[in-house]
Amino acid sequence: VRRRQYTAAEYTEHILKGDITVLSQAVTLVESNLPDHQILAQEVIEKCLPYAGSSVRVGITGVPGSGKSTSIDAFGLHVLKKGGKLAVLAIDPSSELSKGSILGDKTRMEKLSVADNAFIRPSPSAGSLGGVARKTRETIVLCEAAGFDNIFVETVGVGQSETAVHSMVDFFLLIQLAGTGDELQGIKRGIMEMADGIVINKADGSNIEKAKLAQAHFRNALHLFPPTPSGWIPQVLTYSGYYEIGIGEVWNMIDEYIAFVKKNGYFEHKRQEQAKYWMLETINDQLKSHFYQNSEIVSLLQEKENRVLHSIQSPFTAAKEVLDFYFGKIL
Amino acid sequence: VRRRQYTAAEYTEHILKGDITVLSQAVTLVESNLPDHQILAQEVIEKCLPYAGSSVRVGITGVPGSGKSTSIDAFGLHVLKKGGKLAVLAIDPSSELSKGSILGDKTRMEKLSVADNAFIRPSPSAGSLGGVARKTRETIVLCEAAGFDNIFVETVGVGQSETAVHSMVDFFLLIQLAGTGDELQGIKRGIMEMADGIVINKADGSNIEKAKLAQAHFRNALHLFPPTPSGWIPQVLTYSGYYEIGIGEVWNMIDEYIAFVKKNGYFEHKRQEQAKYWMLETINDQLKSHFYQNSEIVSLLQEKENRVLHSIQSPFTAAKEVLDFYFGKIL
Repeated sequence: VRRRQYTAAEYTEHILKGDITVLSQAVTLVESNLPDHQILAQEVIEKCLPYAGSSVRVGITGVPGSGKSTSIDAFGLHVLKKGGKLAVLAIDPSSELSKGSILGDKTRMEKLSVADNAFIRPSPSAGSLGGVARKTRETIVLCEAAGFDNIFVETVGVGQSETAVHSMVDFFLLIQLAGTGDELQGIKRGIMEMADGIVINKADGSNIEKAKLAQAHFRNALHLFPPTPSGWIPQVLTYSGYYEIGIGEVWNMIDEYIAFVKKNGYFEHKRQEQAKYWMLETINDQLKSHFYQNSEIVSLLQEKENRVLHSIQSPFTAAKEVLDFYFGKIL
Repeated sequence: VRRRQYTAAEYTEHILKGDITVLSQAVTLVESNLPDHQILAQEVIEKCLPYAGSSVRVGITGVPGSGKSTSIDAFGLHVLKKGGKLAVLAIDPSSELSKGSILGDKTRMEKLSVADNAFIRPSPSAGSLGGVARKTRETIVLCEAAGFDNIFVETVGVGQSETAVHSMVDFFLLIQLAGTGDELQGIKRGIMEMADGIVINKADGSNIEKAKLAQAHFRNALHLFPPTPSGWIPQVLTYSGYYEIGIGEVWNMIDEYIAFVKKNGYFEHKRQEQAKYWMLETINDQLKSHFYQNSEIVSLLQEKENRVLHSIQSPFTAAKEVLDFYFGKIL
């Protein structure tokens, strides 16, 4: 016989007790696109909300090859050694396109995947980036209610997902490699300026000199950037995820940042801005998908785009005519 | 007696002849928010469209104090010396907030303002940034139809307007000053990565050394950035707008860029992407304003925001309830 579905109250009760199995089932519910599941998931989230918010949320990005998984393994073990519980979530927009997620395999983190007090969850795979990111944002609430006081949100640094991650974490960490002067090859433009800390991996053995040089370059570059809204000056450190060198220093930086922004009020301010952001972002997403997913609009847009690209019509009158059709006929 | 209003055909005829007085009147029409004016303006733009597109469009940004006006004066005279016609447009979002525009005074450009073949137009002041930027984008069409083969779009580098400007120009120029290591103080984060060229002003007299040092710093910083989508490597040059030193070199860089992207196809590709961008941007703007300007939505949002900020409700259910109201009751 199939297990009876829990009620929202039952889910919440178990989550608040820290029951990982039920937490996991609730996250599956959040990730489901079935309307019944969505309604139940939203109820669970609402009930968990008063118990959420007390974790430190760290976004971690770096291109494939930067040693991200090994690093998260090392960072995670370091965090767990100090006590508490760690959840590792992921946002990987490529999972939708390639049907195979770079960040989908839990066993990438060899040590964390068998550690007590660690909860690893691959990227949700269905729907738009907005949808995927929203599910991760909701999963954070559930994890926090379940007593996870450290949340990592992992992403790949090559797409739009960093803005979404940046909008749900307290600290944004960029993993880099020392290279040949093309250090940021592969990383999307704009991401460097989001970073609260840049850490250069594989600073071990004969690679130490190169890593130190890269560190100096990045420090100079960051020096030219405008001040961050938090007042924090982004740090550049070197470490080795594989040999577990400098892990403590990286984490001290994050602790220092959290203390700094809690003191100057930016921590709370940013959390509130993020909550507002997600409300408005959800609204804007839905306004757009209601429009762009309408089949009549799709074909009309196609026709107008052709006219615009051939300079037969201005972008503005084309837009106006599609909108007139939408507001006049469809709604 | 008041002059009879031209028809769209008459406006177009005069604009195509290069009549500056009528061009100026047509731009006023574009900037007007009166529905009748808007309809007529859109007609004129449609008629001008087949004759537009053949200018080189340069976005110029820099904070107040960077010597932007003096520089544009010098750049503009240099361009005019080579022949052709120059239009200088401006986008200044502060004009709405402060009711006084930083970029509103034509006489800031002493030489250009009395030059033949130069058309200077202050920032449109009414409406949202989206609206202001759209009007400037439309004005470009009219100017090009009137035979202006060089268009400068000026902005202040401190707000959202750079993304808009970046989306309507071929080359994006960032004016900087040599400073004390805080070179980008005042410039918004993210703008440096949009620049196709960074030029350091006031490289004259005892300031030359400092300017050269800043040049080296910026070159190192840009070196760390990911490649640009155009394949162009952004250049860093020094010059003096006031003493007219190095102006030719700055413009050679822009000419070189234009030749480079025309050859590799990026010029045309970007122009097409921009046209599509403005169509979709206009649609997204209107979808939002239809929603956010509704008075019932305004008060409901206010109520929901309070609940979200006090963690009484999740951002997602708050969004959903407002959307349900919108789609169910208002439309």
